[in-house]
Amino acid sequence: MKSWLLEFRYNNVILHDQNSVGVFVEKIGQEIQSGIGNCTLLFGDRCDLENGFTLLFRKPFEFTALVQGLSNGILTVDIHLLCNNGLDIWEENIQKLREAILDMENICRKNTMEFDSLPAIKRGRSFSAYDKSSFGSLLEYDFDKLVFDQNTPYQNVRIFHSKQYGNCLVLDNDMNLSESDLQYTIAITGSEKEDYTNKEVLVLGGGDGGILHYLKDRGPKMITMIEIDGVVLEAAKVHLRGICGDSMDFYKGENYEIIEDDCVKYLQKYVEEGKKFDYVINDLTAIPISTKPVGSHWDFLRLILSLSMQVLKSDGKYFTQGNGANCVEALTMYEQQLLDLPCPVSFTKEAVCVPSYLEMYLFLYVMVCQVTLFIDSNLISLKIIIKLFLECNRSRSYCGGSPLTLHKSDIKLTLFIFNIAKYSFKSELLS
Amino acid sequence: MKSWLLEFRYNNVILHDQNSVGVFVEKIGQEIQSGIGNCTLLFGDRCDLENGFTLLFRKPFEFTALVQGLSNGILTVDIHLLCNNGLDIWEENIQKLREAILDMENICRKNTMEFDSLPAIKRGRSFSAYDKSSFGSLLEYDFDKLVFDQNTPYQNVRIFHSKQYGNCLVLDNDMNLSESDLQYTIAITGSEKEDYTNKEVLVLGGGDGGILHYLKDRGPKMITMIEIDGVVLEAAKVHLRGICGDSMDFYKGENYEIIEDDCVKYLQKYVEEGKKFDYVINDLTAIPISTKPVGSHWDFLRLILSLSMQVLKSDGKYFTQGNGANCVEALTMYEQQLLDLPCPVSFTKEAVCVPSYLEMYLFLYVMVCQVTLFIDSNLISLKIIIKLFLECNRSRSYCGGSPLTLHKSDIKLTLFIFNIAKYSFKSELLS
Repeated sequence: MKSWLLEFRYNNVILHDQNSVGVFVEKIGQEIQSGIGNCTLLFGDRCDLENGFTLLFRKPFEFTALVQGLSNGILTVDIHLLCNNGLDIWEENIQKLREAILDMENICRKNTMEFDSLPAIKRGRSFSAYDKSSFGSLLEYDFDKLVFDQNTPYQNVRIFHSKQYGNCLVLDNDMNLSESDLQYTIAITGSEKEDYTNKEVLVLGGGDGGILHYLKDRGPKMITMIEIDGVVLEAAKVHLRGICGDSMDFYKGENYEIIEDDCVKYLQKYVEEGKKFDYVINDLTAIPISTKPVGSHWDFLRLILSLSMQVLKSDGKYFTQGNGANCVEALTMYEQQLLDLPCPVSFTKEAVCVPSYLEMYLFLYVMVCQVTLFIDSNLISLKIIIKLFLECNRSRSYCGGSPLTLHKSDIKLTLFIFNIAKYSFKSELLS
Repeated sequence: MKSWLLEFRYNNVILHDQNSVGVFVEKIGQEIQSGIGNCTLLFGDRCDLENGFTLLFRKPFEFTALVQGLSNGILTVDIHLLCNNGLDIWEENIQKLREAILDMENICRKNTMEFDSLPAIKRGRSFSAYDKSSFGSLLEYDFDKLVFDQNTPYQNVRIFHSKQYGNCLVLDNDMNLSESDLQYTIAITGSEKEDYTNKEVLVLGGGDGGILHYLKDRGPKMITMIEIDGVVLEAAKVHLRGICGDSMDFYKGENYEIIEDDCVKYLQKYVEEGKKFDYVINDLTAIPISTKPVGSHWDFLRLILSLSMQVLKSDGKYFTQGNGANCVEALTMYEQQLLDLPCPVSFTKEAVCVPSYLEMYLFLYVMVCQVTLFIDSNLISLKIIIKLFLECNRSRSYCGGSPLTLHKSDIKLTLFIFNIAKYSFKSELLS
């Protein structure tokens, strides 16, 4: 089944005159009849100045057509193809019908070019290839096969094949990662600006194996990856080798270990043991889209964030995906969670184009920071030194000879200074 | 106006029994009534084993609902919101209605997770934010403003504002370039693998100024850009500065010139004069999507290709956009045009993610090639030397001491050898 939703504007002044509407409505019926087939009028109401008009046509076994003329001048013509015969001809005939209606009297054309009509909505498929972006826009994938579909104790796991993206992992109807999305992995590991040599890396989630596969050969001392859902691990090994390669064929290697368990449990254990990491990469779930930072999703997110900070070395970094770049509210709320942490952090954001996401996506890079500010005695030069640190409340600063302590409440100033330093005093930062 | 298109599967065995259908249909009506509002049944036909059933409900001033039960077991419920009041509540209620219908007797649920329903189709907007990909899939942009809209003698030129992409140039309803699409410019100029120092560059089209702006400061001797549509140039200068910067504020600079004219005229002039370029970058239009390489679009494309080859230096290169990576047929036809050129060419392709295109896009890199093949006397080692050349019919090859000439008909072998050489004998290629 296919549905073409056509849209026009008509001169709604005709609604004042039953005769004009009658002529107009009859003409639409004629165009549908001659354009796509001999149909009968199932329903047509008397025109009404408030309601406009509604017409329903049908050709048995072939199509129904719902025509609605709204009082505000919008005219919609929806053609629902009930069979699947001769789709190419249908496509052509619908476009001709559209042109014919555009040419009708009392139809308002644009001064410039008409917008294209929507391609037909495909219905009754064995799986849906439609999706919506983080901000609610409608998107359609080129999925041609549902490769894997299983409910686990944690989520629904689907893998679709796409001609352009390869196999795509979809969790709970949310596109997670395709075999063409190396850009995601690059972004969440720090956009190629990090040196992982001899580093201790903790990956939270990451069951598709992309991060592990990407970092494994970049010289880290140890990558510990904790994924709760064994079904994702096993499905990825078979169907997402364009993402994980052979990196998950064995769960333990020289410089990596895959743990199939709850990462919260392990984070708590690491905190107790005092185990520290250079990098914590949170590849769990996206920042929830909600109007307030409450609910179990946000609680979980705060828990992960807080535990992660506690297992970071003093110069450690925490990388995570954010959300669609258009989800400004959700992202702002997340940033507020960062500012509310017991230790002052600085963070940067990057908008990245992940091919299969079909929207710009934000990644966050969080560092716990210490700011030490020197202003020399004659106040001519300003020297700012940033030191990354983990221990809370250790931020100190000096103004001339008299120390000025920056507290948690000064976090905005801290960030401001950090940003000045970052962009203006790069060379001094390194010294 | 908003249209929610819901989709279900029902047990079509009930079509055999008028009573069962009666109960089923009545229940749907009740769910609509209690879910989204007191509506009246405008039309409801007697169930029919071949046609299934059709119901049309309406609540005046608020919504119409078209319910179609197809004989193949597909059930669609389309809710058309006629007003624009309380959209959030509507969204919520429609989802509840969907859940209620899913819970009905004789509705078939999936064993795993139901697919999400389509977000509402937005209708009656002053401009359409919907688009379709090169392979016909439905896409929706986040356009919030139509910044510019003008018909020129050549095309319709529109510029939309998008929150995530910045301003977007749309020519004849086709997304051309957004302010976030640097990746397009990088790809069409050779993906950062070229050295433009002291090079002569000819840009065909490129009215958005992206290529000029990108190459201008990369040391070329001269960039000549020929864009036919002055409206694009002027609109880009004002609204697309994220693409062209200040590079088009003056049409002539130290190392560039913008010519507002037909590039075919200039190409013919260059051929006559014997003027040659290191690079020809064709930024005109995408490869047409058609089933046969005929028609004015293809003629134009062949003309441009043929003239471009004639103005290339012997080691010159021709770069162009292809089309969506899924348009395999159109791309294959274009490749055939390349093979049919009087001079043998080799080419490579690259699939690139241009953010605003919402699909993978192919770029083509064409070089005219000469293949010289040496097989030494004891046949143990194979040495292949490739020399790029422009002059037609100069391809020579040697097999041992006896020369073997590769003709145009051997082009597939030539390409094969070229590819072997490219990937296997890189070091020897350079010597």
